[in-house]
Amino acid sequence: MKILVLNCGSSSLKFQLINMKNEQVLIKGNFERIGGMKTTLKLTANGEKKEILHIARDYDEAIEFILDVFKSPEYKVIDSLDEIAGVGHRIVHGGEMFHESVLVTEEVVQEIEKCTALAPLHNPAGVAGIRAAQKALPNVPMVVVFDTAFHQTMPAKAYIYQIPYRYYTSYKIRKYGFHGTSHRYVANRVAEIVNKPIEELKVINCHLGQGSSICAIEGGKSVDTSMGLTPLSGIPMATRSGDIDPAIIPYIMKLDNLTPEDIEDMLNKQSGAWRSKWSFI
Amino acid sequence: MKILVLNCGSSSLKFQLINMKNEQVLIKGNFERIGGMKTTLKLTANGEKKEILHIARDYDEAIEFILDVFKSPEYKVIDSLDEIAGVGHRIVHGGEMFHESVLVTEEVVQEIEKCTALAPLHNPAGVAGIRAAQKALPNVPMVVVFDTAFHQTMPAKAYIYQIPYRYYTSYKIRKYGFHGTSHRYVANRVAEIVNKPIEELKVINCHLGQGSSICAIEGGKSVDTSMGLTPLSGIPMATRSGDIDPAIIPYIMKLDNLTPEDIEDMLNKQSGAWRSKWSFI
Repeated sequence: MKILVLNCGSSSLKFQLINMKNEQVLIKGNFERIGGMKTTLKLTANGEKKEILHIARDYDEAIEFILDVFKSPEYKVIDSLDEIAGVGHRIVHGGEMFHESVLVTEEVVQEIEKCTALAPLHNPAGVAGIRAAQKALPNVPMVVVFDTAFHQTMPAKAYIYQIPYRYYTSYKIRKYGFHGTSHRYVANRVAEIVNKPIEELKVINCHLGQGSSICAIEGGKSVDTSMGLTPLSGIPMATRSGDIDPAIIPYIMKLDNLTPEDIEDMLNKQSGAWRSKWSFI
Repeated sequence: MKILVLNCGSSSLKFQLINMKNEQVLIKGNFERIGGMKTTLKLTANGEKKEILHIARDYDEAIEFILDVFKSPEYKVIDSLDEIAGVGHRIVHGGEMFHESVLVTEEVVQEIEKCTALAPLHNPAGVAGIRAAQKALPNVPMVVVFDTAFHQTMPAKAYIYQIPYRYYTSYKIRKYGFHGTSHRYVANRVAEIVNKPIEELKVINCHLGQGSSICAIEGGKSVDTSMGLTPLSGIPMATRSGDIDPAIIPYIMKLDNLTPEDIEDMLNKQSGAWRSKWSFI
């Protein structure tokens, strides 16, 4: 059985095709700058790396192309698309709706779209990826796996912010937490390594990368985590501020006459385009 | 030797008159709603409490009145103002200028005024209190004690935020920390109680009240604390949000079309006037 795993970011498509018999990765890659003029597919197959310049105007074209690559004489990782038994989609934000991975149905896709306000860059890409995969592989069952689902076990004292409660009831503003798939995996791996049942363990997990989060896991369940409503908060990150004194935001807005959009840019994008705009040192 | 201690808030004046020989508090009280129509002086002297309704339109009138009370036949805690050997003023924000308590000079008052942008409600009241005390007690030496000074030992890794560095160089936006007088006192008291030199101790201090902060103290020096640029940040408080995902602020501003001032109100004043305006639960 071969499973295709897709992770659609705001303009990228990461994928792995896995032979579940031996959990071998047959081919993996990253399609970057989808919708741009320099769409590049970076591939790794049979231990070799390759870069292919191929214009993909949207996720439909990107997925079509990688499926062609899978079947191409050069890679030949599958003979026919029928070999793909299932597709797993990574979705960033599952809101309060999704506590676990679920089979994709039309209703599920609509629920993911409802969470778009909570993850405006990531969830639309995730939905576009699902739609594209459904077009290319219409009869293949698909599953969505959420970054947030693992943290749905947090108690209210961890996820309710000290701001008016109506922001939670009306706008669903609460701590959700992210990196859930990583935190769950690592906690279970810790239990394996120390050879104790996870139900008896308390684990503090540090997921450190471009984006970083810390998670407190009790008996295999997330009880608190450093990221919040969005993946901006918590510890300082490569381009994200992490937690700062919230009073800094209106203070800077007044001093520099900034809009909410300017502030979002400033907090999220401390390198790259933002750096040149703001002369960051 | 008798010392008058003054703590001027945004519309209140707290005071204690202390006989330094035996550290006895001769009289203490809180003048509330200065500038309003129901100015009330709550007094405690000789173990008895009393409330006096007395209009004080400003700090000049408030200080004049409490000095009259000190001399009045009913309390008679002093016969003459000459008995007051010194005045100590609590000032909230000393910026990066003040690392310790200092004698009041005209230059010092001007420096405190320069920190007004960092504590718009508190520092002007503190300066008004100094000016009023100078008028009433022109020949008495005065000292200013800062909430922030104790935390000036924090290393840069604790006080620099992960936002553009120019906000620090241009606007002095950094972590300052508050409750410094309390954290210093408590750390030293801990050393006394456990009977060890403070230089050898690591103390985690929890200052819990309407406003709350936590401080890490190593060898008697503050190395990190939960409050930041302002006393809004850190742990959730009675009326203050504490740290929240910074992304929540532009998110709410866009949803509800709020100004930076609205957001400051919302984050700082979660009860009282604010509660009725926003139907907080």
